[in-house]
Amino acid sequence: MLSRRDVDVPSLVAAARDGSPRALGRLVSLVENADPALREVMATLAPYAGRARVIGLTGSPGVGKSTSTSMLVRALRRQGQRVGVLAVDPSSPFSGGALLGDRIRLVDHALDDGVYIRSMASRGHLGGLAWATPQALRVLDAAGFDVILVETVGVGQSEVEIAGLADTTIVLLAPGMGDGVQAAKAGILEVGDVFVVNKADRDGADATVRELRHMISLGDRTQPHLWRPPVLKTVADRDQGVEDVLEALEKHRTWMEEQGELERRRLLRASREVEAIALAQLRSRMSGLHGDGVLAEAARQVSEGRTDPYSAADRVVAQLTDDPTHPTTATEEVSR
Amino acid sequence: MLSRRDVDVPSLVAAARDGSPRALGRLVSLVENADPALREVMATLAPYAGRARVIGLTGSPGVGKSTSTSMLVRALRRQGQRVGVLAVDPSSPFSGGALLGDRIRLVDHALDDGVYIRSMASRGHLGGLAWATPQALRVLDAAGFDVILVETVGVGQSEVEIAGLADTTIVLLAPGMGDGVQAAKAGILEVGDVFVVNKADRDGADATVRELRHMISLGDRTQPHLWRPPVLKTVADRDQGVEDVLEALEKHRTWMEEQGELERRRLLRASREVEAIALAQLRSRMSGLHGDGVLAEAARQVSEGRTDPYSAADRVVAQLTDDPTHPTTATEEVSR
Repeated sequence: MLSRRDVDVPSLVAAARDGSPRALGRLVSLVENADPALREVMATLAPYAGRARVIGLTGSPGVGKSTSTSMLVRALRRQGQRVGVLAVDPSSPFSGGALLGDRIRLVDHALDDGVYIRSMASRGHLGGLAWATPQALRVLDAAGFDVILVETVGVGQSEVEIAGLADTTIVLLAPGMGDGVQAAKAGILEVGDVFVVNKADRDGADATVRELRHMISLGDRTQPHLWRPPVLKTVADRDQGVEDVLEALEKHRTWMEEQGELERRRLLRASREVEAIALAQLRSRMSGLHGDGVLAEAARQVSEGRTDPYSAADRVVAQLTDDPTHPTTATEEVSR
Repeated sequence: MLSRRDVDVPSLVAAARDGSPRALGRLVSLVENADPALREVMATLAPYAGRARVIGLTGSPGVGKSTSTSMLVRALRRQGQRVGVLAVDPSSPFSGGALLGDRIRLVDHALDDGVYIRSMASRGHLGGLAWATPQALRVLDAAGFDVILVETVGVGQSEVEIAGLADTTIVLLAPGMGDGVQAAKAGILEVGDVFVVNKADRDGADATVRELRHMISLGDRTQPHLWRPPVLKTVADRDQGVEDVLEALEKHRTWMEEQGELERRRLLRASREVEAIALAQLRSRMSGLHGDGVLAEAARQVSEGRTDPYSAADRVVAQLTDDPTHPTTATEEVSR
């Protein structure tokens, strides 16, 4: 975690808003590193955010997330939209582990200054990506991108939560992965606004579509007024089906606006963003010089069976919610 | 989140310590549901915990985690050890999405009262599994299991963190997955104490072993006194190589005890457990009646660009670290 005191925030923000990929990259890195300059960055960006459409794209490894992202980027570029991509996925080609084909596709986009692609590295702290992703979104949003695609691997709770930050979430599947049940287990049925069976030229695509429609219809029966997610087919590496996906995105957006759902989701996103920052601040206090002695001593007592984790946590919370600038005697007695 | 006021904690704990799978299941469910009775459960269990060996098993989908878990369970049972398994993996067959072969293997274990297998469902809150997993471990530990295997999917930061809770972490790979670089990206090279290339009867196993050894040796050069993780080969569905794995686990344990590393890791585990509970308490205060109005208003201001998320978080934290039983005027002015 570097503290770069030399960050000239106003210039950096101005350059990012002028479309400088270098400035954008620098800002997202500040987010990833939880740089102290972020506070000023976010204050500067605040008036500009809230305009971009945020589309989540999630699915298990192997369903063709990156290929589908590329397909959508191409289609949105044909409409003249500026597109930002955040790849929140350690297994994504955008993170470096690329197959050659994907790299080539990426290089195509790299020559287009209406596209900015960035993979998010997960920092090694609790809630790392949950903390960083909304802020990275905010950077791209304030920099003037029309659409931001957030690509997440649909495995793991944090990724599902991140997918939930989008205005519209596309869940990708591929035929023959026994998907319906798996998707339900992983909790991605609930987050999907649009389902896409990619690699639809393979055997079993229609069966996967049917299975998904069936599972979705089960949900519908209990909540008849909700959005009914369409199930579409694509062959992303041949751009097949992309018009249907764009149309579904448009319909979902209209529905959200009519229902007040767009505002609800954006409030939720802001709420989670604020909450994640607040929790990180509390956590940092907990790990600080003052709090750490308390935590270390609590951990030792728990580890030795002398107390239970809840009583220990009570003491840590009590300590934390005291005035942290005035350590009590009890704290000073504790040594690490 | 159910509050079951009818939980008879002392009887439940006694039954779990007597080996009742039903009581064990009930206790783990209390953890998953963040039941208020947990406080009493953990206080009751505190003196009994700290005896089990905790072994993490992590790897990408498809490397054979469940098959390897089964192999280890069989081998440990032959040694007469009682074995608990926590499957922290939405894609695990133990979670229900099983291939037939895996189910049959599970049924075998189900008839053996020296084995308890449980999949952990992730609750829909930030840090859900990071919060629940150490407590579920504590339940099995206090119930008297000699070894607890924690199976996690090696994708996503939270899973990597959970793997880090073990005394010893086994990282599983399979040949021909271009693994070295991917493993490094996913951060699993750092958490591995023992590397196992499973499906070693397939082409490319030796190349994967060489690549891993090379990458591990690069790490060694800068930190010559650390444990040098062995790279082993198994064919888990034929029990091939399991003796080597057990031997490596034994060696690692001896090394940890000699170096004081075992105590260090257990303190870290207790520290994370306490921290996760403390954070959840703070978070719950934030979402409570009192705090939620503040958070909702903060989110609205951020969403409308009237403030930035850091300033908003400052206000939430300030509110939270006041005495929560005495809401200030500022709070009462806020309406949702």
